[in-house]
Amino acid sequence: MIKRLKELHENKDFFNRTLDIAAVMPVVKEIITEVKDRGDVALREYTGKFDGVKQKEIEVKPKEIEAAKRGVAENTLRCIEEASAAIRNFHYRQKSRAWVEEFGVGVFIGEKYVPFDAVGAYVPVSYFSTALMCVIPAKIAGVEEIVVCTPPGNDGNVDALTLVAADLAGATRIFKVGGAQAIAALAFGTETIPGVQKIVGPGNVYVTAAKMLIREEGVEIDFPAGPSEILIIGDETANPSFIAADMLAQAEHGEKSKAVLLTDSAKIAAEVEREIMVEAGEEQEQNWIILGDGIEECIEFANEYAPEHLEIMVSEPMEVLKRIKNAGSVFVGNYSPVAAGDYATGTNHVLPTAGYASLFSGLDVDHFMHRIAIQWLDKEGLRRIKDVVVSLSKAEGMEKHARSIEKRFSPASSD
Amino acid sequence: MIKRLKELHENKDFFNRTLDIAAVMPVVKEIITEVKDRGDVALREYTGKFDGVKQKEIEVKPKEIEAAKRGVAENTLRCIEEASAAIRNFHYRQKSRAWVEEFGVGVFIGEKYVPFDAVGAYVPVSYFSTALMCVIPAKIAGVEEIVVCTPPGNDGNVDALTLVAADLAGATRIFKVGGAQAIAALAFGTETIPGVQKIVGPGNVYVTAAKMLIREEGVEIDFPAGPSEILIIGDETANPSFIAADMLAQAEHGEKSKAVLLTDSAKIAAEVEREIMVEAGEEQEQNWIILGDGIEECIEFANEYAPEHLEIMVSEPMEVLKRIKNAGSVFVGNYSPVAAGDYATGTNHVLPTAGYASLFSGLDVDHFMHRIAIQWLDKEGLRRIKDVVVSLSKAEGMEKHARSIEKRFSPASSD
Repeated sequence: MIKRLKELHENKDFFNRTLDIAAVMPVVKEIITEVKDRGDVALREYTGKFDGVKQKEIEVKPKEIEAAKRGVAENTLRCIEEASAAIRNFHYRQKSRAWVEEFGVGVFIGEKYVPFDAVGAYVPVSYFSTALMCVIPAKIAGVEEIVVCTPPGNDGNVDALTLVAADLAGATRIFKVGGAQAIAALAFGTETIPGVQKIVGPGNVYVTAAKMLIREEGVEIDFPAGPSEILIIGDETANPSFIAADMLAQAEHGEKSKAVLLTDSAKIAAEVEREIMVEAGEEQEQNWIILGDGIEECIEFANEYAPEHLEIMVSEPMEVLKRIKNAGSVFVGNYSPVAAGDYATGTNHVLPTAGYASLFSGLDVDHFMHRIAIQWLDKEGLRRIKDVVVSLSKAEGMEKHARSIEKRFSPASSD
Repeated sequence: MIKRLKELHENKDFFNRTLDIAAVMPVVKEIITEVKDRGDVALREYTGKFDGVKQKEIEVKPKEIEAAKRGVAENTLRCIEEASAAIRNFHYRQKSRAWVEEFGVGVFIGEKYVPFDAVGAYVPVSYFSTALMCVIPAKIAGVEEIVVCTPPGNDGNVDALTLVAADLAGATRIFKVGGAQAIAALAFGTETIPGVQKIVGPGNVYVTAAKMLIREEGVEIDFPAGPSEILIIGDETANPSFIAADMLAQAEHGEKSKAVLLTDSAKIAAEVEREIMVEAGEEQEQNWIILGDGIEECIEFANEYAPEHLEIMVSEPMEVLKRIKNAGSVFVGNYSPVAAGDYATGTNHVLPTAGYASLFSGLDVDHFMHRIAIQWLDKEGLRRIKDVVVSLSKAEGMEKHARSIEKRFSPASSD
């Protein structure tokens, strides 16, 4: 049913996408404590309880990966390789690089980037594309130990495509563990699973709650994750059939996923509504069609909503794009569906949801590195800035800071 | 007293720089709740209690800033301006910029960067240089609302240099509030202080505890802060007098600050020890002189220690520099003392301490922006990647993702 944007501003339910993490916190806290204290024993118990699997080996063996490769159709393997190449291309372009410049004679300033030693990637069951999205940027950053945790299926094994994708992307170790227990294992390490410095990747509310808790223990995360979502801004030039298709594709991510069309055209709104009915055969609770007074109002709402995915299908997309402030990933024009970004444009599909796109960036190479500032002055260089340093040190009451400079220019100094 | 590195590996006290945040948590939690619930009234009570000041106005008025400017010595003002210019230069160079590239005919991929709307900077009392370091990068990122909180002095006012520096750097509002109550005010907003998306800047253990707590409320921070520290790697070519001066300068930051010399030269160790005695007149608990078996061992220890400041004074500094993995800011050679970076090389002096340099970067322009991926494909571009997207969508069980692509190439599609 088509709604008017004005009326929506009263609807708290729609705006409020806060994750209900509080509800699962007691369970998750217990899981974290148990895994921290009892390691693999606790892991096996939880895998038995939650995944219904009695586990002998927690780690995936090389021969399992080999078998998985043999079982994958040649065309699928080729497509995974092509997608990987695009993802590598984008993330390689995105990578920050060391630099040094002479900011004044004898004053060399720069930065270098250092990858983390070990990171963890959480891959939800059967999402092999997420394995690519988490592991490839870590690999490009230069991380040596890239540990993947993913839940086992009913047969106790990880599905073949996830194994193939994780291995191809550069995962160094793969474990058949999911849920909050996997996050705890990566954070603290167990007898089998190595502890890491940072954990990335999407997951359900238990996984997200666990990720938020382990930040207090000095392990970083990418960002909290919630249900996937799309917001489309379309004017009367948009193609209603493409919009409907993209909204229905979004709904495929689960019943909590939301698809929103924002348009200033009553005609487009009606046509999209009809298309969805034709395609889906019924009204979709998850799909909202919202009519605004002009594109201006739509842009404002989009920035407020801060969607994970934003599609822009208007006659002057550049005008809209330049005013977008909050979104995880943006898809411009009629031929840039979200599905293209999910698999093959090369951008990352691990993105902030639930309004977090106003605060966080999607997963990127920088998530796996830290930067270090460098200064290298010679005596002439230091002389150039000497007076400023000495004056300001003294003004701030730091006499010995001043002295550390002056000493280098005292007659007694031989160097 | 000179210690041997081998023996130190047993010394847990030295390695353990964990901040004792747990001890202050109950108090800080109460402060946060009170400020959240009672706003300015609570702020005034805490400022009365902790700063001993009965406050009429919480916000600094323009006329106070004007008065501060008139009171500052001309040379000091000129030095602040020169330091600001250097800081701007470095951070402008460091800033990530939007880009678009054609990754294949009709496949345009890029990224744009968007500043946060509002950020908060915590400036410890009288650290005017920290006001520059927090506000300038935010300004260069393009943040519109840059809110500074800094504790009032005994007279109820903020010191003149801090006002001048914050104003010159581009702070939009300045408040006379310090401690955990300032962090709470910035996180939730009060009647007077606007709420912000992210809070940066160093502070004592109460401030740090408050920063860690408000992360749970969806407000981001730079990183936890602890006492300032330096680690120096020096070989027999280092200048012991410079080393001693830099170690004593570090001690100026307070009794919890630590200065460590790591050397493979017994001669240098002895000379530095003597210099410190001569300069300080007594042994310094905060200063450690550590003798390692070769520079190799020193580098390894430095990476493990992850110091806030690292000075490298060796005959082949490039060989050491390239192997440094964990440090906040690095100072190379005999003429690059930390004091130069504190004020005038332009790099940021708000840096991770207490071992956090293995996980976090120092404050930078990226702290004040988030990035958004962009893809813009035309029909030919989408056709290029169509097969990969369709195959992988189906392989992942996402039939409607595949359909959203196929629909764009169906004969019925007119666009």
